[in-house]
Amino acid sequence: MVNAFNPDSLAHLDPALAHAIERRTRLLGPAYRLFYQTPVEVCRGSGTRLFDKQGGEYLDAYNNVVSVGHCNPHVIEAVHEQMSTLCTHTRYVQDGILDYAEAMLPSFGGRIGETGHMMFTCTGSEANDLALRIAKHHTGRRGIIVTEEAYHGNSELTAGFSPSLGERAPLGTWVRRIPAPDSYRHDPAALGRMLADAVTRQAYELMRAGDGLAAFVADSLFSSDGVYASPEVLGPVAEAVRAAGGLFIADEVQAGFGRSGDRFWGYQRHGIDPDIVTMGKPMGNGFPVAAIAVTPEAVASFGSDMRYFNTFGGNGVAIAAARATREVILNDNLQANATRIGALLRDGISGLANRFEGIGDVRGAGLYIGVEMVTERAARSPDAALAARIVNEMRERRVLISATGPEANVLKIRPPLVFSDADADWLLSTLEAVLAA
Amino acid sequence: MVNAFNPDSLAHLDPALAHAIERRTRLLGPAYRLFYQTPVEVCRGSGTRLFDKQGGEYLDAYNNVVSVGHCNPHVIEAVHEQMSTLCTHTRYVQDGILDYAEAMLPSFGGRIGETGHMMFTCTGSEANDLALRIAKHHTGRRGIIVTEEAYHGNSELTAGFSPSLGERAPLGTWVRRIPAPDSYRHDPAALGRMLADAVTRQAYELMRAGDGLAAFVADSLFSSDGVYASPEVLGPVAEAVRAAGGLFIADEVQAGFGRSGDRFWGYQRHGIDPDIVTMGKPMGNGFPVAAIAVTPEAVASFGSDMRYFNTFGGNGVAIAAARATREVILNDNLQANATRIGALLRDGISGLANRFEGIGDVRGAGLYIGVEMVTERAARSPDAALAARIVNEMRERRVLISATGPEANVLKIRPPLVFSDADADWLLSTLEAVLAA
Repeated sequence: MVNAFNPDSLAHLDPALAHAIERRTRLLGPAYRLFYQTPVEVCRGSGTRLFDKQGGEYLDAYNNVVSVGHCNPHVIEAVHEQMSTLCTHTRYVQDGILDYAEAMLPSFGGRIGETGHMMFTCTGSEANDLALRIAKHHTGRRGIIVTEEAYHGNSELTAGFSPSLGERAPLGTWVRRIPAPDSYRHDPAALGRMLADAVTRQAYELMRAGDGLAAFVADSLFSSDGVYASPEVLGPVAEAVRAAGGLFIADEVQAGFGRSGDRFWGYQRHGIDPDIVTMGKPMGNGFPVAAIAVTPEAVASFGSDMRYFNTFGGNGVAIAAARATREVILNDNLQANATRIGALLRDGISGLANRFEGIGDVRGAGLYIGVEMVTERAARSPDAALAARIVNEMRERRVLISATGPEANVLKIRPPLVFSDADADWLLSTLEAVLAA
Repeated sequence: MVNAFNPDSLAHLDPALAHAIERRTRLLGPAYRLFYQTPVEVCRGSGTRLFDKQGGEYLDAYNNVVSVGHCNPHVIEAVHEQMSTLCTHTRYVQDGILDYAEAMLPSFGGRIGETGHMMFTCTGSEANDLALRIAKHHTGRRGIIVTEEAYHGNSELTAGFSPSLGERAPLGTWVRRIPAPDSYRHDPAALGRMLADAVTRQAYELMRAGDGLAAFVADSLFSSDGVYASPEVLGPVAEAVRAAGGLFIADEVQAGFGRSGDRFWGYQRHGIDPDIVTMGKPMGNGFPVAAIAVTPEAVASFGSDMRYFNTFGGNGVAIAAARATREVILNDNLQANATRIGALLRDGISGLANRFEGIGDVRGAGLYIGVEMVTERAARSPDAALAARIVNEMRERRVLISATGPEANVLKIRPPLVFSDADADWLLSTLEAVLAA
């Protein structure tokens, strides 16, 4: 995993931290990973800040879950009030879930905005798993096309089409991959056609294998592929998917809820009308709540043949968290803030690129930023070692970012949407100091 | 689905409720189901009570999620305090998750109690999905054996081995089924051997199909099979599973956390030492938190080849909810309460059986009770219509229960563990009145 701590290397750590990590391995086992060469031990959060046990203050430029800020009081209050009133499931009639769905649905536009439905889960993985179950049932097929280094979840089904989990996590035989829209190495204007042609080819292969195309799934910011944000790319792709008889699933777990700045949903930067939209991470600012939005056509046969029940999904408290988070995003104009601060960060990093040869490309949308590090600009050759050094040096200076991409050489910067001008200054000056060091 | 409202039948409803249900269908689509011929519209909960908009008070004898009572103040306070402090994920070092795992692990006894690990998810479905992924990776096989009418989750993988979802939800080709331990129609002393022999036969079939046995999975109270609680039955089954090279997964989503009265975990009533234990529903009293506990051997290869990350799973607030819920269960002796009140309810219903021929069998453990309704006692012929009438008549009198089993004729009574003597009296007197009517 990019930016994973190596648990065999404890010697350089403070004894108390080394002890905590040994205890963690003993209690949680071998499948958990920590971030950074020196993991961060957190015990308090506020806004864009995290604090360790010694009171050390960190600038959080990585956590997109706490979109409206760590410990946002409006969300805390909404959860507390609802927990003190009622917390139960969707087999009783309750207003809150209906009010939330009614408020959200128009935001999707297109067919979902007109007559779509929302269904509630607890995690983005569950949302993607459900979306695929619906797509497979609707089409009677099982093939799935994703991008080269996609991540869509941790369930058996979604892990099966999440190549970024690594070569030892086998993909389903019914999975085909297409390139990510690498705007650094290709003409951005040609990307849409390039991806659409790849979809057409892979859909043909799925047909030949007897699987057929159930769905194409993409995160419109291509987070684990290395962060690519050229707009309009997915338009031709959606046409190719439809021509092959598949559903288009927009995985908005990363890009949604205003993160991309330009639009509330990332796929809207591509002018497409998906059959299913999945969402999660920032939806309840850390409260486990996620969902899908779907056209009536896509879910009709699933709804009559099957049923869907998720004990905690859409319970009163989950909905209260989601409602409050949405209110803060809208009332505090956080989408506009993402646009403004995102541009400021990209401009600042582009400025640094004039002085530091290692910065090959600066890209992104809103507050989702990728900075590609290279050994040599002309060759665009990935420099994973440099990216890792920067991420860990930033962490030593208490600014939290990470890295991504198939070559692990792309800095990943995606702070809470409440990131301020002063936060951006702090991040930029620290990055400058690290690059200079 | 047993006890599902028929949305085509709105004419008998109060216009406001009919409107709410139409709105619900429009916003949430066709895959959601409501309970009862006249659905319940809830807006407040407290202890063992739910309240509707008009202030009508219901006795909740069905919801096993709110194990320590609706709106339990200790859990509310713990969640509020942690939400006000920090809510973030498992890639930073945090004490809470380790303290919780350390407190919990000894409760499992056996190999897990000695050296096992806990891994955190958000839902029971995710826990079972993860458990199966681990079992498949460990064994290199994919076959699964479950009971006839089992339910284990809503993900693609877990729905594939959940026959209770109905005939239109196809099972995986790698699934084989064995009978549930029907203590009403078989000698309880013979059940263990009967099930073990069936496992051996089906494991052989899986081997012949090239799948092999990865795991046997069972809920030790066999909730969706009709509630069977004979102890010791799973001992011979576990031996047969091990002999066939599979893992034994104890699905404790229903039976765990003291529900069965006798023991903290339901599988402990069977004297077995499972490879993986999965848990969910009551773990956070409604907060979305779930987990698995696993032996180091079972998870070793999964942990080195794969990684597991669940954005919300085991976050600080989820752990706070789980910690507080556990504290209430232990401090308020709710396991003992489940034993005492459960026995009182079963005795009371057995008493009613002396006067009402429709009651064929009363069974269960702790506060998980099944009452099998029959048309004729001698023939033990299931009476689903009578069970449905009772469930709906109880609901009209504001006592909430449901029904289960392959023939939908078993009353399912599983109240919060804080159910009191007075609550039991209310339930019994209402049941008596309904049976008399």
